[in-house]
Amino acid sequence: MNDLFADRMNKVHKSFIREILKVTEEPEVISFAGGLPHPKSFPVDEIKEAVSEVLSGDCMEVLQYSTTEGYRPLREYIAQRYSKQGLKVDADEILITNGSQQGIDLTGKVFLNKNDKVLVENPTYLAAIQSFGLFEADFRSVPLLEDGVDLDILQRILKEEEIKLFYSVPNFQNPTGITYSKAKRKQLARILEDEKTVFVEDNPYGEIRFLGEDIPPVKSYLEKGVLFGSFSKIVSPGMRLGWIVAEPEVMEKIIIAKQASDLHSNYFTQRVVHQYLMDNDVDQHIEKIKKMYRDQRNLMVEMLEEYFPENVHYTRPEGGMFLWVTLPEGLSSLDLFNLAIKENVAFVPGKAFFTDGSGDNTLRLNFSNSDAEKIEEGIKRLGKAIYQLM
Amino acid sequence: MNDLFADRMNKVHKSFIREILKVTEEPEVISFAGGLPHPKSFPVDEIKEAVSEVLSGDCMEVLQYSTTEGYRPLREYIAQRYSKQGLKVDADEILITNGSQQGIDLTGKVFLNKNDKVLVENPTYLAAIQSFGLFEADFRSVPLLEDGVDLDILQRILKEEEIKLFYSVPNFQNPTGITYSKAKRKQLARILEDEKTVFVEDNPYGEIRFLGEDIPPVKSYLEKGVLFGSFSKIVSPGMRLGWIVAEPEVMEKIIIAKQASDLHSNYFTQRVVHQYLMDNDVDQHIEKIKKMYRDQRNLMVEMLEEYFPENVHYTRPEGGMFLWVTLPEGLSSLDLFNLAIKENVAFVPGKAFFTDGSGDNTLRLNFSNSDAEKIEEGIKRLGKAIYQLM
Repeated sequence: MNDLFADRMNKVHKSFIREILKVTEEPEVISFAGGLPHPKSFPVDEIKEAVSEVLSGDCMEVLQYSTTEGYRPLREYIAQRYSKQGLKVDADEILITNGSQQGIDLTGKVFLNKNDKVLVENPTYLAAIQSFGLFEADFRSVPLLEDGVDLDILQRILKEEEIKLFYSVPNFQNPTGITYSKAKRKQLARILEDEKTVFVEDNPYGEIRFLGEDIPPVKSYLEKGVLFGSFSKIVSPGMRLGWIVAEPEVMEKIIIAKQASDLHSNYFTQRVVHQYLMDNDVDQHIEKIKKMYRDQRNLMVEMLEEYFPENVHYTRPEGGMFLWVTLPEGLSSLDLFNLAIKENVAFVPGKAFFTDGSGDNTLRLNFSNSDAEKIEEGIKRLGKAIYQLM
Repeated sequence: MNDLFADRMNKVHKSFIREILKVTEEPEVISFAGGLPHPKSFPVDEIKEAVSEVLSGDCMEVLQYSTTEGYRPLREYIAQRYSKQGLKVDADEILITNGSQQGIDLTGKVFLNKNDKVLVENPTYLAAIQSFGLFEADFRSVPLLEDGVDLDILQRILKEEEIKLFYSVPNFQNPTGITYSKAKRKQLARILEDEKTVFVEDNPYGEIRFLGEDIPPVKSYLEKGVLFGSFSKIVSPGMRLGWIVAEPEVMEKIIIAKQASDLHSNYFTQRVVHQYLMDNDVDQHIEKIKKMYRDQRNLMVEMLEEYFPENVHYTRPEGGMFLWVTLPEGLSSLDLFNLAIKENVAFVPGKAFFTDGSGDNTLRLNFSNSDAEKIEEGIKRLGKAIYQLM
């Protein structure tokens, strides 16, 4: 039956994380494996009010089919919010997607032929590997330094190879938590300006900066490229609402791809989220999330300092939901996983985030979804497992 | 800039219907062009109650990320409903999609290599041409008779060519309104049984039969193949909720494709629709829709009998939302469109639904979205335009 499926399906397998998450769902396991926002970050009462507002009066239209691009006032809101961040975008350059994940899918559909080269950060977002992989991309990777990608290596790759897309998560990257400095964003934009490579900027965590100063997206220094955003981390991930920003020529193709994919994103919840944004101070809400995640991140770092051996290194992210751990060379995080799960604590081994097969000694820890007590106890147990491994 | 986009984008253009709909949106135009359910068919009050139920108590989970397959109780409900229709399906064989449109997209992704042959009915659903087209399908078509596809021609095609997928809408087809007879479904299943061709059965209108007896899906006579369903015509299209039924081996691949596309469908509205289905008699609600559409269809047929020339033929659908008109050979429905729009009445010229360039003298009329008054006045005007054309 192997000739039944398209060739692209041979290259992609069930997500490793997905399989791991099944193990970690047991109630006695303290899990830093997932990538979930904290449920306390959801504005439940405000959503309730927004729903009852949207469903009042002559509301039948909110249950009807709608336009492929999405609800225009919601797109206008997003455009206005960008203008505050120093990025000039018109509502026509925005299309509503099912989370920024669908941004990746539509971008692959619009740009990628089989064997086109896609450059990713090393490591990178796992579901981007899956998604571009289904368009039979040929992956190249560029290392991440503390302040973003290694520009020297990037330039060398761009010179040597014809790279179709460069996929990047400049803010609080998943999995590493690394953020591109402002200087690096400008340099990167200058390098890409003269290249045919399409810059794909994914920014699901950008609003959740709890330390340091906000930095404008790379797109604000670069005329071309596509940019993704998401309501998943600031309103609700279950509603699957995000967006793509693209120049008109590209947007025209994205509209065609979106229409063929699912006609349009859930219109009812587009209306609900828009109503929520109109009736509430979303910045105040985001401040609450930031405070919560900052406390959790700080506690996790504190615990790591106390319970991890000194030759284990980790990032100290200024936002987002993840922290990245590097074990001494030669140790395997998969072995650690097996020891840790006996202690009822879980994480994601890092190897899956690398397209070049490296990363054996790395692992990802999520801090957004765990309360203080679990962070304290979980890191204690994980430290114990690391000492066992050594 | 033409080498910027993937080759697949060259084959698909902005939907013709989409462009036409813009013309027909003027308030003075009576439009039979769209494919919208009647807004009166939306159970607004019941949806309100379902939302407030879902958002009561400890409800934060309904705003969180969820599983790729979809909310299990909703999938169980769908499985149970099929069992009443004579189809045995397990909840594990069902995945929730963004309308049945996404079923088409995921099926293309899982099965189609470039230039794989996809067989469609002639004419067929336009957005299926778009969606499979983006996977660079090579289309073949088989004529539709009054009781379903021409099985002799189907058999000849299957013998002569290696057909990867056969896409079919057996109930109240879009655009023709044609329904496969029970005998034909059984014969079709027998023919496909021994073929490698994957049968793709799209059934968005099946619940809206307002005349005659329900007929089981082809899938109930055939072990393999995929089947799509949708809540768009019975609850709300704006919520974009449908599903795929597939055997476990295929479902495994569909889950991978769905995850890479958008992680999962809107979970909040999955919960809302499930709650609605639990708390209400959906069959009673569907009866109301059927009565409404039957009256509208009957009135349209009556008007056609009165105002159209005798040598213009049309289908008399037993359900769904569309009726199909064939003008005498040599006349063009595009010319008719230009005359009709001057009379402020609109429809979709049929040519776009054919993959072989034929269908110049055909057109699609939607009866679900228009009230009696508009049907009476609109068909009168359209009849006048036809006489002008002749």
